[in-house]
Amino acid sequence: MTRVQDIYPKDRVILREVGLRDGLQLVKKFPSTAAKQRWVRDEYAAGVRHFEVGSFLPAKTFPQFADVGDVVQTVASLPGAHGIALVLNERGVNEALASGVAEIASVLSATEQHSQANANRSREAAIANIKRLCELRDASAHKPVVNAAISMALGCSIAGPVDPKEVLRLVEKCFEAGVDMVGIADTVGYAGPKQVGDLTKAAVRIAGSKAIFVHLHDTRGMGIANASAALDAGARILDGSLGGLGGCPFAPGATGNVVFEDLVFLCESKGFATGIDIDRLIAVRSILRAEMPGEQLYGGMARAGLPSRSAAAAA
Amino acid sequence: MTRVQDIYPKDRVILREVGLRDGLQLVKKFPSTAAKQRWVRDEYAAGVRHFEVGSFLPAKTFPQFADVGDVVQTVASLPGAHGIALVLNERGVNEALASGVAEIASVLSATEQHSQANANRSREAAIANIKRLCELRDASAHKPVVNAAISMALGCSIAGPVDPKEVLRLVEKCFEAGVDMVGIADTVGYAGPKQVGDLTKAAVRIAGSKAIFVHLHDTRGMGIANASAALDAGARILDGSLGGLGGCPFAPGATGNVVFEDLVFLCESKGFATGIDIDRLIAVRSILRAEMPGEQLYGGMARAGLPSRSAAAAA
Repeated sequence: MTRVQDIYPKDRVILREVGLRDGLQLVKKFPSTAAKQRWVRDEYAAGVRHFEVGSFLPAKTFPQFADVGDVVQTVASLPGAHGIALVLNERGVNEALASGVAEIASVLSATEQHSQANANRSREAAIANIKRLCELRDASAHKPVVNAAISMALGCSIAGPVDPKEVLRLVEKCFEAGVDMVGIADTVGYAGPKQVGDLTKAAVRIAGSKAIFVHLHDTRGMGIANASAALDAGARILDGSLGGLGGCPFAPGATGNVVFEDLVFLCESKGFATGIDIDRLIAVRSILRAEMPGEQLYGGMARAGLPSRSAAAAA
Repeated sequence: MTRVQDIYPKDRVILREVGLRDGLQLVKKFPSTAAKQRWVRDEYAAGVRHFEVGSFLPAKTFPQFADVGDVVQTVASLPGAHGIALVLNERGVNEALASGVAEIASVLSATEQHSQANANRSREAAIANIKRLCELRDASAHKPVVNAAISMALGCSIAGPVDPKEVLRLVEKCFEAGVDMVGIADTVGYAGPKQVGDLTKAAVRIAGSKAIFVHLHDTRGMGIANASAALDAGARILDGSLGGLGGCPFAPGATGNVVFEDLVFLCESKGFATGIDIDRLIAVRSILRAEMPGEQLYGGMARAGLPSRSAAAAA
């Protein structure tokens, strides 16, 4: 049985690369399986250990994740690395369990309107689904970690502003359903750092010994500021994608997740050691550029590099 | 006599558009005087009141600021608007005083190495220069506000890391020299929010009833996070440039100032009313695009727009 504390020790910040899943939701051209595997291996060499690698969804609808099992295997082959895969239904759960993936991700909308529009079910039904997922996990041999992300937790593309109390109620429901981790997701980059900090602080309090992760999008340029506020509020697990790859089907013009390499710089600048080498991480962008030449990559670190540490460095 | 409290009331956040000066330091093509005047007028209509409009420097070396007097006049013609112009030497001070500009900006390097390399003088000599500027201001008819920005205050392109104690010593020296406001400038986007917050907090304490402004660059993607930290630390005057226009001669690949429109969203999201209409502000980017088609503009708000406030808005 995998214990959540083993792969998410509470005493340090853990940054998760979600570009292989969230980053590929909307791209025009999909990277080859071999390129995904190089992406994982090269980031692993740079120090990254947590990878969301795809979804167990019908390959007809989501062909970019047809090879999710292969990428799960790649991650599993790297000592200390930890793979995550998204599921939406019971068939997916069973496939995910069979793949041996270390963590299964699920999702729940913060608002009833978005839940109905996006998943064609109530939030109640979504929580029942997550509970069933946890039961299947308990009955499985390797008992992966299960997480539930609350999408639109800081503002909804359909309902507009979201009441934080409602989100915190859902955080409690998810833990009651048996998940190990709950995610606060600003899916459409709706909020600023005050909102993110306040909600994170309250969620971390509810979580107790269980875990909260924070999943931010840089839609309105607030990504890094929001990540900083989440860290100040006690979050220790944050998602990002290399080059800010990705978009959001619910927000035209939206960029993807917060830029992973800038997130590393942020954490290090705040005194949180990430174990990640920024220069080596930036170099991995070449895989994305070669495989998805039509996608815009973002980020300050890739543009400017690490600041000079001494007179000699700048000479 | 202009009192600093009149144009920078302490009870609210003031955002200053510095794109017409800092944003134009390195652009390949300069906007026409008429375009600069439209830029000012349109931002004024959007609610902006503080504009750094150029430098009183030799027009041979800085042809982009040859028309600074005209833009000073444009700002002066708008009720409640407030123009700022940079000077580097006594000739410039006299021209600035003659122009009637409301505020004169001066600059001082945080490190001895940068001061010598950039201005060919010691920091001591730079402070003497600022003192002389304040004396000329005192002897003038309209007595403009005088500010001094400490460049490289959070890290230096030549010397590397900068001791905050050294910066705070310079803050004190500048106030002793007679300036009304001191600026903390992260000229090359060196630092993260912790460094910016800590230094700002200490500088605000030193300033007392005088003012501190914070001038940030988005070089490494930390601009908005750093602005958020500066606000948390008590800063109430922040600089930005529309579209993040500009670069830095000391940091290849660096972007310009923190994106003005994203800065507005940040402040509003934190509960600080700026009086600025983001949609109208974003529309002003069309002037920059038309006049400087080769320059990259940045920013999340321009990409995604304001978040929907209601179900109706997103329908």
